[in-house]
Amino acid sequence: MAFASNLTALGDAMPWVAEQLKAQSGGKVDLRVFEPGKMIPALGVFDAVSEGKVEAGYTWMGYEIGKVPASALFGAVPFGMEPWEYAAWFYFGGGKELLAEVYKPHNIHPIFCGTISPEAAGWFRFEITSLDQIKGLKFRAAGLGGKIWQKLGASVTLLPGGELFQALEKGVLDGTEFSLPTVDEQLGFYKIAKFYYLPGWHQPSTSQYLYVNKKAWDSINKETQALIETTCTAAVTMAIAKAEALQGPMLSKFEKEGVKLVRWSDEILAAFKKATEEVMAEESAKDALFKKVYDSQKAFQAAHQPWRKYGFLPR
Amino acid sequence: MAFASNLTALGDAMPWVAEQLKAQSGGKVDLRVFEPGKMIPALGVFDAVSEGKVEAGYTWMGYEIGKVPASALFGAVPFGMEPWEYAAWFYFGGGKELLAEVYKPHNIHPIFCGTISPEAAGWFRFEITSLDQIKGLKFRAAGLGGKIWQKLGASVTLLPGGELFQALEKGVLDGTEFSLPTVDEQLGFYKIAKFYYLPGWHQPSTSQYLYVNKKAWDSINKETQALIETTCTAAVTMAIAKAEALQGPMLSKFEKEGVKLVRWSDEILAAFKKATEEVMAEESAKDALFKKVYDSQKAFQAAHQPWRKYGFLPR
Repeated sequence: MAFASNLTALGDAMPWVAEQLKAQSGGKVDLRVFEPGKMIPALGVFDAVSEGKVEAGYTWMGYEIGKVPASALFGAVPFGMEPWEYAAWFYFGGGKELLAEVYKPHNIHPIFCGTISPEAAGWFRFEITSLDQIKGLKFRAAGLGGKIWQKLGASVTLLPGGELFQALEKGVLDGTEFSLPTVDEQLGFYKIAKFYYLPGWHQPSTSQYLYVNKKAWDSINKETQALIETTCTAAVTMAIAKAEALQGPMLSKFEKEGVKLVRWSDEILAAFKKATEEVMAEESAKDALFKKVYDSQKAFQAAHQPWRKYGFLPR
Repeated sequence: MAFASNLTALGDAMPWVAEQLKAQSGGKVDLRVFEPGKMIPALGVFDAVSEGKVEAGYTWMGYEIGKVPASALFGAVPFGMEPWEYAAWFYFGGGKELLAEVYKPHNIHPIFCGTISPEAAGWFRFEITSLDQIKGLKFRAAGLGGKIWQKLGASVTLLPGGELFQALEKGVLDGTEFSLPTVDEQLGFYKIAKFYYLPGWHQPSTSQYLYVNKKAWDSINKETQALIETTCTAAVTMAIAKAEALQGPMLSKFEKEGVKLVRWSDEILAAFKKATEEVMAEESAKDALFKKVYDSQKAFQAAHQPWRKYGFLPR
């Protein structure tokens, strides 16, 4: 696995899948789960499965953005879809077919196997009230989100999770984003940064996949294939449900700890959105498959919009 | 089944489950699906499963509200939870355990097996701009929603789906609610009622269950039990995804057909909410188990609220 099994909803979906497979098959289908680094490096899942060094691995899609640019769009997209909207696009809007196309040349059969609630936008040591403050801001961000912060003038670094607390405490960073409130809590940021910004426009959903080596996949029988696919589909329900169940109480806990929850101003959100459009246009120009997938997602979101607007009670 | 398999996301989840069970077991687990009325009456699933006349049935939970008042709260709740929030409460907020408690005396093992997007609030032959217009309004509504309309002075009738088009056309009804936009479209209301009100405050999610007779459930082996439970969990993903995927384009179609989409005014929504609180207090006073389940849901919603408020981009 690319992340530890103790990370709520992100890391515990795959152990759940393994357990269900065992229970359903009377122990015959026994997918063994290894913590990151125990068998292969955390970020090495794509390579190891692609080359057949392991038969399967579980990962956030997008770590291989350097080799497969379109992969990022199946992992998390700035101003993209919420988890249930992503599932809607994936199963009924052409996503699954596009995914197969993207991974075929890499000998990987990817199975959608978990998606979770929006990330938070980040922890800051001080309040951000104007766009000017973003220029030169020392901020940790990853992937496409990082490029967008840079476009607005931030000084972006990508430190790993384990180094963030200290960097924030010492002022090496003015702020950092990491994950869901429940995961952020596990890293302790609320003790040293008292402004928590939401929503996480850079990652409205985060999706995980089971990568199976193509040859290994073709070698197992149809019943077991169906069992694995269906159980991963069930894991999508469980990840959505678990992530949603826990974030409200966690925000209340942060408030009790003296953290101020802040919604981005409309002005700043609009600036993030404009910068997102520029970055996504640049990425689309560089890679035809990225453009094809992104266009499909944008078309789906546009068609869905009237329902977003009219269908729901106010949040 | 309590509803036809041609009803999108509502009726097609169970046939999907049957198909997956067959594929995963190599045909050994063969759940046979019958259209409403073919084996037992559409509204007779609870009785037939409870008495052991059939081993299992698929239904909207709540049709047995007269015998099991708390059942309504597992089917659809006015100002209740959205589908993913309902799944969060069900799996991680105590819902599943409460459900087992509610159905144990009736010899039914219920399995959560699908939940779908909010209903629309209804079709009207004219615009509703003030609360006064609701007094005496001839409206078709079901269940708890119907009681709330009545509280506001509407003259509520419960006609079956097949009679609604004609009643609306002839002016026997001023308006009607039925289901999701995609299902409403199948009944043709948009041809004769040009005002479509949203959101459907009375039914923010609609949940379906596979009822299995307790004795039949206990007689099958643990592997098959796990297979059925997990496949139903996967059906929750599929129903959420399918219902979300299709509603946006349907609203656009209605607009092209000359329908005006209208969001309830804040004033009218507030009146529905107040009437809901009165009706739910009355129902809670009448039945201890209803109160226990409703209190659990309200506590979950209150704890979740900070996340609803801060966690998401504007819709």
